[in-house]
Amino acid sequence: STRTPVAPPRPGGRGQTYRPGARRRPGQIVAAGFVVAVVLGATLLLLPAASTTAHRPTILEAVFTATSAVCVTGLTVLDTATQWTTFGQVVIMALIQVGGFGVMTLASLLGLLLSRRLNLQTRMVSASATRSVGLGDVRTTLVGIGIVTAVVEGATTLVLAGRYVVSYGEEPLRALWLGLFHAVSAFNNAGFALFSDSLSSFATDPWICVPIAVAVVVGGIGFPVILELTRSRRRPKSWSLHTKITLAASAVLLVVGGAFVTIAEWTNPATLGPLDARGKILAGFFQGVMPRTAGFNSVDTGAMNNGTWLGTDVLMFIGGGSGSTAGGIKVTTFMVLFVVMWAELRGDPDSVLFGRRLAPAVQRQALAVVLLSMATIAVAAITITSTSPFTSDEVLFEVVSAFATVGLSTGITAELAPWHQGIIIMLMLAGRLGPVTLGTALALRERQRLIRLPEGSPIVG
Amino acid sequence: STRTPVAPPRPGGRGQTYRPGARRRPGQIVAAGFVVAVVLGATLLLLPAASTTAHRPTILEAVFTATSAVCVTGLTVLDTATQWTTFGQVVIMALIQVGGFGVMTLASLLGLLLSRRLNLQTRMVSASATRSVGLGDVRTTLVGIGIVTAVVEGATTLVLAGRYVVSYGEEPLRALWLGLFHAVSAFNNAGFALFSDSLSSFATDPWICVPIAVAVVVGGIGFPVILELTRSRRRPKSWSLHTKITLAASAVLLVVGGAFVTIAEWTNPATLGPLDARGKILAGFFQGVMPRTAGFNSVDTGAMNNGTWLGTDVLMFIGGGSGSTAGGIKVTTFMVLFVVMWAELRGDPDSVLFGRRLAPAVQRQALAVVLLSMATIAVAAITITSTSPFTSDEVLFEVVSAFATVGLSTGITAELAPWHQGIIIMLMLAGRLGPVTLGTALALRERQRLIRLPEGSPIVG
Ligand SMILES: [K+]
Ligand SMILES: [K+]
Repeated sequence: STRTPVAPPRPGGRGQTYRPGARRRPGQIVAAGFVVAVVLGATLLLLPAASTTAHRPTILEAVFTATSAVCVTGLTVLDTATQWTTFGQVVIMALIQVGGFGVMTLASLLGLLLSRRLNLQTRMVSASATRSVGLGDVRTTLVGIGIVTAVVEGATTLVLAGRYVVSYGEEPLRALWLGLFHAVSAFNNAGFALFSDSLSSFATDPWICVPIAVAVVVGGIGFPVILELTRSRRRPKSWSLHTKITLAASAVLLVVGGAFVTIAEWTNPATLGPLDARGKILAGFFQGVMPRTAGFNSVDTGAMNNGTWLGTDVLMFIGGGSGSTAGGIKVTTFMVLFVVMWAELRGDPDSVLFGRRLAPAVQRQALAVVLLSMATIAVAAITITSTSPFTSDEVLFEVVSAFATVGLSTGITAELAPWHQGIIIMLMLAGRLGPVTLGTALALRERQRLIRLPEGSPIVG
Repeated sequence: STRTPVAPPRPGGRGQTYRPGARRRPGQIVAAGFVVAVVLGATLLLLPAASTTAHRPTILEAVFTATSAVCVTGLTVLDTATQWTTFGQVVIMALIQVGGFGVMTLASLLGLLLSRRLNLQTRMVSASATRSVGLGDVRTTLVGIGIVTAVVEGATTLVLAGRYVVSYGEEPLRALWLGLFHAVSAFNNAGFALFSDSLSSFATDPWICVPIAVAVVVGGIGFPVILELTRSRRRPKSWSLHTKITLAASAVLLVVGGAFVTIAEWTNPATLGPLDARGKILAGFFQGVMPRTAGFNSVDTGAMNNGTWLGTDVLMFIGGGSGSTAGGIKVTTFMVLFVVMWAELRGDPDSVLFGRRLAPAVQRQALAVVLLSMATIAVAAITITSTSPFTSDEVLFEVVSAFATVGLSTGITAELAPWHQGIIIMLMLAGRLGPVTLGTALALRERQRLIRLPEGSPIVG
């Protein structure tokens, strides 16, 4: 009864392609869900019960905060620690959890649908059997993501709460709340913190920094990978190409990113300079993990040198794993393009990674995701820089941070003009939903070209 | 007697590819030629006769100037107008002419070789007949480029010299020298000027700015295109795909670039602000033409707003036409990637432009050229920014300007540390020879993969 008849190719003229319209719907539904969550969240944050008496938030500020939470970005125009009451902070935490869960579910289901379709193409199995993702798959995915979320957030909460009680003299209930909030914020790569200086007070405390970094990495690696690891942890050879790429690329980026920040900031008196060697390495690697794409900071981002900003821009742009809470273009996208380039330089007509040829369609999808992302960032950065008093390196950092839903900031977000903050809001939404839906929408689309044109080869370079 | 036997595919194992070694030689020969020209030029510039008494150039300064001239970049550590005697300026002009002629010839011959090879593949003609470019082709190309150079430079010299005599009261001989130097500098997209403030004194003089802009555009469009235009100017439908793309993309970039600078700087009191509307448009469009990649400036680049810098970075990175004196990744490379992205977004499995499918190999070549160029720029910019007092937007501008051999400057080049200037020297050489030789080397290489691996499709985005 679930049979879906396959539509025959429509007759078409020159250059016409055949695309069923239904393919765009999942992205649109989720986008609508995000907007609803933002509106609901902003409304709650506007309630008197959400704010301390200090400052009544404007609608723009409430929408900005809600968008930042739902998109798990972490950029703020108001200080999370002092602006909001516990009720307001619970609203933010709930928005983070909804947004993170939503995007993980979306990306995982789209990925599942995609792999079914690819299996279909490869194995020539009857279309009706494997074409779509059934209710059973959805339930399994939801439950799986729920379990992973609960386990990681629970464990992180306990470690953090214990540390807050033992070493910082917090009351148990307050410590549990602090632990829970930062665990949720970390696993969902949200970067919101209940301290005005983010985690700067804990820069040299491995009992705070390490569990948070671990939660960030696990949350940012993606549910499809976690699922495969729990099922066949001891048989690395059986892992899918996606899992292998994600793990390898994440490991390389963590090491390279951490080493880069540590070395670049080693002597900076405003960041790592005053710390001892152990503290420099802990804080430097923490800051190298955060661009993938958590956005906590344990040293002052605004005081980092400009070269570290540029390097961090690159790390933030790449982001985390597909089907994760992280943002950016995703490590697989980056690796695909890198491997294509490498193959081209080696003179190899096939782009090979872990014993597999990368499908040409995947190469084009990666290119489309990266170029569109770059174009979005360039247009936003040029627009804001041209019409604001800030330098382009500050603006570029903020724009990349928003688009990759990182939340690191040189400190200019709150000082931007309202319409610039509006651009940042749109960047957060576009960056949260764009690459996910674009990448899978492109991959899922039916394709058929009825007439092929003659080939042409312009001179390149 | 010119028959070249085609080597049979070598037996190979998994993933082995077959590549004849001889393919890399043209690039290496030309690179050696460039280095020889730099050494010779620097030696001449170190002669007492080359310098005014004011300052004796260091070896680094002489090498920097010679590299900048041979690579037709135009970045300077010493003021061309006051540092060098007329002898020194003649040396610089000769280096510009040699460098510009050399790179046009190289790119045109490689392009010719490439189109022969492509025709061979398409038509299945006997390999020995059309495989290589003979002496006759070389002579035709050299003579053709010589004629185009002489005609454009001669006409520009006359117009400029006339203007200098009539409106600026220069003596005829001096006016002719000024006209010749700037004509050579313009046609070769070198950007060297004999005035300390480049062309700022002539910002509102169309008789100076327009001929220079025309020479820049003609020089930057590429000999293959010029050749085809002179042969079949009235039959646009017969033009090659390369010519169509180059002309269309150049036109779009000129209009978009000019409009962007004009609008972005309209009210800037340090640049276009003081000019009347006509002057603003002339100077704004002049500054929009120069990133492709001449490097003259008629308004103060350092005083432009940061958004204009970022936008100019993009224009400089794209650069001019293949087989031209311009630098950058080239407009065809840019268009190929843009069209691939557009096709992907439209769901079209073929990337079509002007009625032709872009060959998949060309798509990968374009990707390799762009990614390697970006990586080079990113590494250089991050390195210099991390170790210098300048902001990353200033450094990025200078690095892109050097790599794309543009020569526009925010004014920091002369103040950089010696080893940073060394990086800039290497960037100029890499940017001048890299994309040209890389693009064609990739396209010319034999390719054959004996065993194909199974396909894999990681999730992207
Ligand atoms: K974040
Ligand atoms: K130049």
